[in-house]
Amino acid sequence: VLFLQGGASSQFAMVPINLLDDKSEADYLLTGQWSKKAVAEAKRYCKVVNIIADTSDSKFTTAPSQADLALSSDPAYVHYTPNETIVGVEFAYIPETGEIPLVADMSSTILSRPVDVSRYGVIYAGAQKNIGPAGLTVVIVRDDLIGTANENMPAMFDYKIHADNESMYNTPPTYAWYLAGLVFEWALEQGGLPALAETNKRKAEKLYAAIDGSGFYSNPVDVSCRSWMNVPFILANADLDAAFLEQAAAHNLKALKGHRSVGGMRASIYNAMPEAGVDALIEFMVDFEKRNG
Amino acid sequence: VLFLQGGASSQFAMVPINLLDDKSEADYLLTGQWSKKAVAEAKRYCKVVNIIADTSDSKFTTAPSQADLALSSDPAYVHYTPNETIVGVEFAYIPETGEIPLVADMSSTILSRPVDVSRYGVIYAGAQKNIGPAGLTVVIVRDDLIGTANENMPAMFDYKIHADNESMYNTPPTYAWYLAGLVFEWALEQGGLPALAETNKRKAEKLYAAIDGSGFYSNPVDVSCRSWMNVPFILANADLDAAFLEQAAAHNLKALKGHRSVGGMRASIYNAMPEAGVDALIEFMVDFEKRNG
Repeated sequence: VLFLQGGASSQFAMVPINLLDDKSEADYLLTGQWSKKAVAEAKRYCKVVNIIADTSDSKFTTAPSQADLALSSDPAYVHYTPNETIVGVEFAYIPETGEIPLVADMSSTILSRPVDVSRYGVIYAGAQKNIGPAGLTVVIVRDDLIGTANENMPAMFDYKIHADNESMYNTPPTYAWYLAGLVFEWALEQGGLPALAETNKRKAEKLYAAIDGSGFYSNPVDVSCRSWMNVPFILANADLDAAFLEQAAAHNLKALKGHRSVGGMRASIYNAMPEAGVDALIEFMVDFEKRNG
Repeated sequence: VLFLQGGASSQFAMVPINLLDDKSEADYLLTGQWSKKAVAEAKRYCKVVNIIADTSDSKFTTAPSQADLALSSDPAYVHYTPNETIVGVEFAYIPETGEIPLVADMSSTILSRPVDVSRYGVIYAGAQKNIGPAGLTVVIVRDDLIGTANENMPAMFDYKIHADNESMYNTPPTYAWYLAGLVFEWALEQGGLPALAETNKRKAEKLYAAIDGSGFYSNPVDVSCRSWMNVPFILANADLDAAFLEQAAAHNLKALKGHRSVGGMRASIYNAMPEAGVDALIEFMVDFEKRNG
């Protein structure tokens, strides 16, 4: 495990810089804005970026099934984004890629539940969702994938340099490390990832149930791949958006505005959001619907 | 001014990636361990790195004079390190480079005194000395030097991408920004950089005076280029080093061990160290000498 300065945006470059080795192609699953950014950055280094799944036709409200995935003939790796924050879509399974290393941008899902690390070649995650403050990235790399970085690229992008120096090749982001350590201890005190998973599942399910049970709110994502972390919803009448946000804020329910590309609302219910916060949101939503529905 | 994730190590790469443009050579002043690291990284991108000054013969205890600097025929820029932390040597002047952009790694001297920014093409500084927590870099780039980055390199290393996005191309290290803002406010409350300079000059002068006035402590750096920020000193008898450190720590005088490459002691007296701290150190040094000299 490496603890690096910077965020996932740097990892979009670090993955091809380290994993391409003598290959020139990589496979990417395009399932939202974050995977789109990963693809754009990969094109700086890959001769060909194969898009082996593309859910843009559904406006990213679906996830491809395993059967949909047709790996190219000789990719250096397969990259996907288990959870996309803007539309709130996540994979309910880990893609099977055989001998090809699987790479995941877990920024918005890491620590939300247990994960079988052995299935991955590389896992990377910006800290700012479930780990700690922005400016720190956690990278888990399979040993045999370390040591093949392109040497014409910055030393800071070489897994091996970081691994050999125990993440201290440069002055590390010490305060962010410290805070992340406190979060890891907190997670263990809660009962670890299985306990966090139970809570997160319950938080998400009750919020989706409230949305689906109303005729006033709706969520467009296929039920098979709804995110536990990011729950977007729209109001039946968008003219009420401003009133919803203002009244919610008056109840200390903040940062609910949806991403500008999809509009509406978005409740990001990472580990830091307690179940009581979700309950309060649901209560407010029911009340708002009564008064405006 | 850009506020970027990461530290000076990333900037060692970012400077040539952005400034080389259609040139292939750059000039570097080699005056210590930090400029050595900058040179090593520059070699990844420059066909030729010209070392136009090299003080390694003096074990980096001197600084080259303006007359010593012979710029090469067509460098993209001239890079130097105004303050080197390990030996504690700093430039008492700003090198004159004519039309060639001057680049400075000011990590260990920024905010210690006023600086004529107009003399520089690029100033960069890791935050962790005088600005805030590690993991944030401040970069000041002359407008005409933005927009010529090598596009085969990571997007995160392109000044223009950061400038166009007001340092928010990626999720910025928000907490480090916030703390840096508090430090900037604090600096203004002190009377700004002129006031900090007065205090820093006084802190350094009294500590060097205590060292030079004793027959027990010594500092090898030429008096014309002693650092205000890092004051290394050795004891006449290195066998006493462990006792010095232990007793100093008992007086709450900590982190005084010199860098392993030079041994002895090092007092880093950045802005966060009040003058009273320097006074306490001097008092302890005088007492230790009385008991052991």
